[in-house]
Amino acid sequence: MFSSIHFQSKGRATTNASKPEVIAALQAIVGEENVIVEPERVEPYGADAVKEKFPPEAVVFPETTAEMVAILKLANEHIFPVTARGGGVGYTGGAVPVDGGIVIGTDRMKKIIEINADDLYVTCQPGLTTYEVQQAVAEQGLMFAPDPASYKDSFIGGNIAENAGGMRTPKYGVTKHHVLGLEVVTATGEVIRTGGKTVKNVVGFDLVGLMCGSEGMLGIITEATLKLLPMPEATSTVRANFHSMEAACKVLTKFTPEGLLPMAMEVIDKHCVAAIEDNFAFGLSKDAGAILLVAVDGSKEEVERNALTIERVINENGGFDVLRAKTKEEEDKLWDVRRAISPSLMKYGTLKINEDVVVPRSKVPELVARIEEIGKRHDTFVANFGHAGDGNIHVNFVVDRDDPDAIRRARECVSETFQLSVNLGGTISGEHGIGYVKSQYMHYAIDRPTLEIMKGIKQVFDPNGILNPGKMFV
Amino acid sequence: MFSSIHFQSKGRATTNASKPEVIAALQAIVGEENVIVEPERVEPYGADAVKEKFPPEAVVFPETTAEMVAILKLANEHIFPVTARGGGVGYTGGAVPVDGGIVIGTDRMKKIIEINADDLYVTCQPGLTTYEVQQAVAEQGLMFAPDPASYKDSFIGGNIAENAGGMRTPKYGVTKHHVLGLEVVTATGEVIRTGGKTVKNVVGFDLVGLMCGSEGMLGIITEATLKLLPMPEATSTVRANFHSMEAACKVLTKFTPEGLLPMAMEVIDKHCVAAIEDNFAFGLSKDAGAILLVAVDGSKEEVERNALTIERVINENGGFDVLRAKTKEEEDKLWDVRRAISPSLMKYGTLKINEDVVVPRSKVPELVARIEEIGKRHDTFVANFGHAGDGNIHVNFVVDRDDPDAIRRARECVSETFQLSVNLGGTISGEHGIGYVKSQYMHYAIDRPTLEIMKGIKQVFDPNGILNPGKMFV
Repeated sequence: MFSSIHFQSKGRATTNASKPEVIAALQAIVGEENVIVEPERVEPYGADAVKEKFPPEAVVFPETTAEMVAILKLANEHIFPVTARGGGVGYTGGAVPVDGGIVIGTDRMKKIIEINADDLYVTCQPGLTTYEVQQAVAEQGLMFAPDPASYKDSFIGGNIAENAGGMRTPKYGVTKHHVLGLEVVTATGEVIRTGGKTVKNVVGFDLVGLMCGSEGMLGIITEATLKLLPMPEATSTVRANFHSMEAACKVLTKFTPEGLLPMAMEVIDKHCVAAIEDNFAFGLSKDAGAILLVAVDGSKEEVERNALTIERVINENGGFDVLRAKTKEEEDKLWDVRRAISPSLMKYGTLKINEDVVVPRSKVPELVARIEEIGKRHDTFVANFGHAGDGNIHVNFVVDRDDPDAIRRARECVSETFQLSVNLGGTISGEHGIGYVKSQYMHYAIDRPTLEIMKGIKQVFDPNGILNPGKMFV
Repeated sequence: MFSSIHFQSKGRATTNASKPEVIAALQAIVGEENVIVEPERVEPYGADAVKEKFPPEAVVFPETTAEMVAILKLANEHIFPVTARGGGVGYTGGAVPVDGGIVIGTDRMKKIIEINADDLYVTCQPGLTTYEVQQAVAEQGLMFAPDPASYKDSFIGGNIAENAGGMRTPKYGVTKHHVLGLEVVTATGEVIRTGGKTVKNVVGFDLVGLMCGSEGMLGIITEATLKLLPMPEATSTVRANFHSMEAACKVLTKFTPEGLLPMAMEVIDKHCVAAIEDNFAFGLSKDAGAILLVAVDGSKEEVERNALTIERVINENGGFDVLRAKTKEEEDKLWDVRRAISPSLMKYGTLKINEDVVVPRSKVPELVARIEEIGKRHDTFVANFGHAGDGNIHVNFVVDRDDPDAIRRARECVSETFQLSVNLGGTISGEHGIGYVKSQYMHYAIDRPTLEIMKGIKQVFDPNGILNPGKMFV
């Protein structure tokens, strides 16, 4: 088993995957042009957004379920690691072959099999980006609700495997709430079909639920049927400043008595505000201890009425410089500050460690305040922003990539932040998953008996341990 | 392994559970007054809505998780069957001890541990009815959305274990979409905790998803954290007649282009209409080949506008005798016809076999037409109604309980209806589950490799096969 060395890349591993007869067999399955082995060409498939490099021995691009089956049968015959990869933009190394072996790129599996507007579902292969799925169904007036920030790059297969979140969670939930059925090739090369085309389906154990968020460790998704909704007619956003994070977050709970469920509620802390203002000069008030963005969707009338309610509630609860978008263009502009965060923070260092803890949303002010203390204690710059409406905060420790002591201190901060999140009734990842990056922290959140059950399930799907080894469990 | 004999009750089985030292140990765990063994007192715990009797050897009522652990450890030590029971109103025998052993009644586990209006969750024990949970949170202006028809009798633990559905699925989904976290005592007596208090949570495999709908075969839920929503301000219902089921169902898809997602869409076929009219004389038109009920919820203005849209769409698409409720009382009256179905159908026989197949909703007219043919061919009275908006139809074959040949013919009808549902892209159960009643039909919907994975998972949780044996797999 690979032992995770965070912040350090390995050289290229050598396993049975490199044997000439294995490469030849892979070529026979998918065609010679769909297997790459040259070091410079496989290298990009050895990293994700974590930017550490674990180059695979080969990258294979199947197009069909039958090809996927053949590859996995081969891997079990010769015993070598297989790691499925979608867009390769994950934050926890879930698609990275830390133990070598082959990467299966789903790039060629881009078929939309059926869009059914009457029955509100789309069936597709895993290699489409979430954006491509959204665009295809939008043409028929339909919406696929999950919207991870990476939706233009991340593949739908990866989003399901990671149970991706995003901004719309307060109203629409996460990816798993929108998956109706899956075809999966298990680690041993068996094709299983679970769920179907209907929301109601109680025939046997819910393997759809189990596959969502399984991080490519149980099987590889080869086809997904996703739930669609009528496309809402309109959206609107209100942006406001608050004197403190606490004041901004108190407002989150004030919409419930109004019977209102915003689609998105995002906060930006004072360090982010300062960084944005330093770099982009939006003219944000110096008194802004936090920024709150609240978005609603629905019919035009409903959106208009709800946006007015939000504006009123914010005004009544200490918000100032309240801006309400009246057009799509104005709405886009309000979100510019949100988009400005990441580039602004990179001015404080060359390495931004972006964690994504989650707590019950009323605990966000305490979380953020105590993370600041942690940063101070370890002399590490920290800035927080994220999905306050669902309690999922992006904690950014920014350091110098070439300063080993700063990195060591940042790792201390990460560890303490995870422990804090669990203590506040939350957990160590809201939407990024565990991968190899967080596997050493699993025990903060998951107790021994629960871990043993998970390992038992892994064993059922993957007795030879060939699928995505070195992840989740250490 | 028990071999399912549908429509036939067994005598009381004898297993190690009846040993004096086991009964004494059970009494030591929960107190003497919370163990019942007298034949006449245990008998009611041997049946559910299927009405077949499989009396347990003892019924045990724990109050705490620790007691539940002790009971399951004892069961693994002495090897006897354990079946968890909630309200005992299931339609597939999920809570019925077909192999004998003990029943664990969760009746004493009725604590509401926390209602958190700020963070929109409730944490409770499994023995509350869904109605009790709904009432408790409604006092704080909150809604627990799932609403199985049995909500006043069924326990929340059972609803989770069966992944209960209901009428609100088109808008709100099913029970699994509203479960955030679970504490579960596994079959071996280990306490596992999965999920938590937040919608976003991607730490390890999603055992919450797996537990929902696992029919008490993997573990016993001892605590659940459920997602809450702001209580909508208003609801409204439109009821209309149509000349045919096809015409009524065509309307279901016409709301999507209006950007409208009704909360509930129910249909009633002509046989139900005739039965209701024969028995209750509501004054329904003789031309009514089907009745459609459509309900919406939201703010008062939104509900008013959406109800008008629904009325218009129905009028444009062949609906007649269109009635729109303007008050809560009027709304209740519109639903009276729906509530009149079951008592009316019982006039056609002494045994009503109520199945709950599901198909993509555009296939409902074909499903219903072909089920009628099946009924005719087997000389069996059949009437259909149900949740057309999500494709989940209640198919009722009504026969004489004392006519073995009629029962045989009805079983033929059931089998053909299941096969038909699968052929139409649906499955054999939308909300009732499998239990022992449908286990012989599992292979219609689930292929061999998928079944093997499910059996492997069962083995991980329950190596001794003590928990709810005789269910799901045959």
